[in-house]
Amino acid sequence: MCSPMRIAIASDHAAIDLKTELREWLIEQGHEVADLGPDTADSVDYPDYGYKLANLLADGTAVRGVALCGSGIGISMSVNRNPSVRCALVSEPLSAALSREHNDANCIAMGARLTGSDMAKACLTAFLETEFAGGRHQRRVDKLSKPEI
Amino acid sequence: MCSPMRIAIASDHAAIDLKTELREWLIEQGHEVADLGPDTADSVDYPDYGYKLANLLADGTAVRGVALCGSGIGISMSVNRNPSVRCALVSEPLSAALSREHNDANCIAMGARLTGSDMAKACLTAFLETEFAGGRHQRRVDKLSKPEI
Repeated sequence: MCSPMRIAIASDHAAIDLKTELREWLIEQGHEVADLGPDTADSVDYPDYGYKLANLLADGTAVRGVALCGSGIGISMSVNRNPSVRCALVSEPLSAALSREHNDANCIAMGARLTGSDMAKACLTAFLETEFAGGRHQRRVDKLSKPEI
Repeated sequence: MCSPMRIAIASDHAAIDLKTELREWLIEQGHEVADLGPDTADSVDYPDYGYKLANLLADGTAVRGVALCGSGIGISMSVNRNPSVRCALVSEPLSAALSREHNDANCIAMGARLTGSDMAKACLTAFLETEFAGGRHQRRVDKLSKPEI
């Protein structure tokens, strides 16, 4: 099991049940978890929650993020708008591990309507337990913080 | 089959074989395809190619993008740094279709070491043939162009 971390979790209305389940599971493992909402099933816009999560990662309030929506696609796009954050949309643990090893991802995104809760936990475990490999990957990760727009 | 489109495709060294196969397959279907490289298997940095692809989508030179690297993760992060572009990392056609229907994605990312070429073609077909649903999704997509960083 990995060391306890400060983890922030956010979703849209389509993923509140998965958010609750993953939040409680992370707390059981000793992590400090900030749930950024939403708290009800009322329809919300995923970018609002993705941006909030990205800001907490960018300012160091949280060291890892979990971003959830129906497909995971929309919220992962919004989190990746912040050049200080690296969010990987995954549906299986190999991608979750590679996102840490090669991309030093500090946020994982998943789709609650596409990925079941046990698979989501396996992805999250791989994401939290895998170290960044550094080396040639560091230069590429550095470039992700300096977008040429 | 969908109408011919101006499509730009880019990768890193890990995905040049898949890039070549998808490029030729798209051309056979009548699309106009700009291959942004790389052309050899020499090691390159995925953000360089992701940013180039995002710029062509942002300025309208291409209407759809295909972004490939080993896992698809790194290049999708780099493309999504550009707030004018919406890049969906997918490994199966349902996500590819949802990325169009809900997120109006104009770029698809895939991992050449994780997704086989026939699956990649099925994803690309769903991506190119599915229309954006608009409605409540439009407000969310609009917010993706205005990141709060």
